[in-house]
Amino acid sequence: MAMMLVNGAPAESISVTDRGLAYGDGVFRTLRAVNGQPLHWSRHYAKLHGDCAVLGIPCPIESIMLSEIQSAASGHAHAAVKVMVTRGSSPRGYAPPQACVPTRIVIVEPRALLPRHSGGIPVHLCRLRLAHQPALAGVKHLNRLENVLARAEWCDPAIAEGLLLDQDGFVIGGTMSNLFIVEAGVLVTPDLSRCGVMGVTRARVIDLAREAGVTSRIEHFPLQRLLGADEAFLVNSLIGLWPIAQLADRTWRPGALTQRVGRWLDAEDATRN
Amino acid sequence: MAMMLVNGAPAESISVTDRGLAYGDGVFRTLRAVNGQPLHWSRHYAKLHGDCAVLGIPCPIESIMLSEIQSAASGHAHAAVKVMVTRGSSPRGYAPPQACVPTRIVIVEPRALLPRHSGGIPVHLCRLRLAHQPALAGVKHLNRLENVLARAEWCDPAIAEGLLLDQDGFVIGGTMSNLFIVEAGVLVTPDLSRCGVMGVTRARVIDLAREAGVTSRIEHFPLQRLLGADEAFLVNSLIGLWPIAQLADRTWRPGALTQRVGRWLDAEDATRN
Repeated sequence: MAMMLVNGAPAESISVTDRGLAYGDGVFRTLRAVNGQPLHWSRHYAKLHGDCAVLGIPCPIESIMLSEIQSAASGHAHAAVKVMVTRGSSPRGYAPPQACVPTRIVIVEPRALLPRHSGGIPVHLCRLRLAHQPALAGVKHLNRLENVLARAEWCDPAIAEGLLLDQDGFVIGGTMSNLFIVEAGVLVTPDLSRCGVMGVTRARVIDLAREAGVTSRIEHFPLQRLLGADEAFLVNSLIGLWPIAQLADRTWRPGALTQRVGRWLDAEDATRN
Repeated sequence: MAMMLVNGAPAESISVTDRGLAYGDGVFRTLRAVNGQPLHWSRHYAKLHGDCAVLGIPCPIESIMLSEIQSAASGHAHAAVKVMVTRGSSPRGYAPPQACVPTRIVIVEPRALLPRHSGGIPVHLCRLRLAHQPALAGVKHLNRLENVLARAEWCDPAIAEGLLLDQDGFVIGGTMSNLFIVEAGVLVTPDLSRCGVMGVTRARVIDLAREAGVTSRIEHFPLQRLLGADEAFLVNSLIGLWPIAQLADRTWRPGALTQRVGRWLDAEDATRN
């Protein structure tokens, strides 16, 4: 059973006048907790704070969010944590209220670890193309209909993820994950300045690569370049790393750098437990 | 005090697991009710149904929605009605549930009529540019962060509306209204096949113009063409029609065709009461 807190109190509902519902006027995070402690919390809070700032929502203070997550996750070896912060309720209309009282929501689901898929996964190539909206690009906000429509394109449970291109045909990432490709020992991840979500695990991979002396680049690139890459993998905070085994007619076996990045992430997770 | 119904029962909250909150996975309508009867209900329900179909959400049947609105609006001479339909709750993740149980929400606010602004209103030219997403264009869905960010650009209460352009600089409409311009006796309204919301009052104006023998066209056009137009006005289901009096350096006086369209709308409202 999931444990839910709304503004710190056990509750399973929010007001129908909340702007999170009315307009998707809020942001969220999904992360793992191990033995009641959220992994990579500082990064997640910094991202939550930054995303709130883009929308002009006052972010709840860190110690409150952390203690609520710890409280909801306590007693569970492994849990998936979802945190939402909305602009709260307001009178009808798009205008943000001048005195905004944000709503904070914590949902904790006890769970086993997700499958590792260390042999790689087949990936669906989504027909939906992401729109360019620089004012919201990178932000994990609650306007996620593009992701919903893209994820609705397939129902084969063997396909764990779908790849999204933008309206110009550039690769952006998975519906719920960030993408890296490997070219001659260099990591390349899509430029998300026009659309997509900049995840915490993407930032961790870039930092871990720097520490290991592996070059990483952020670039716009088309599908053909992904299909020609030596390796390709997807990351997010819940799944960790999934190698891509198949996309369109291209197949890959998990490559050396992909496996190395997976070990970096695992090692860092272990030290943060 | 607002009257609220969730799935037909008096309630002021929805589940925090509702996909309307999680992803903005739903649609909405805003309309007027007079003496407990929603105005132009057939058009509003058809639009609600069509918008649900775009998202693959089973639309609640018409008689249920209508009776809930009538119930919530009864006893009020004038009311603003908001109807939301979401895809309901689901386990975590973007994948729409195969057995979807939509959530329907009716919020009725008793109110006086909105100001007529028959002399016209000053309009803010929004800096935010709307993204092109043909898969969602025209639909009044719950992903409205672009509208929120645009509306947050000004707080002068004398400015009742803002004008939105798309990423290519074409005119789309107001943050909460549709736009018409008048050129030599012809009505022109923006093509909304790439972004924007196709409102019910916009459709009514097009139909009423046809009945009156006035030509109307749906076209992509840039800001310069709006600034050069003989007349310009905004419409939606709550405000009716507001002439534009000022935008950037251009000023207008309410024109003859603008006033004529306003009379068409008023006359049709009166017969539907």
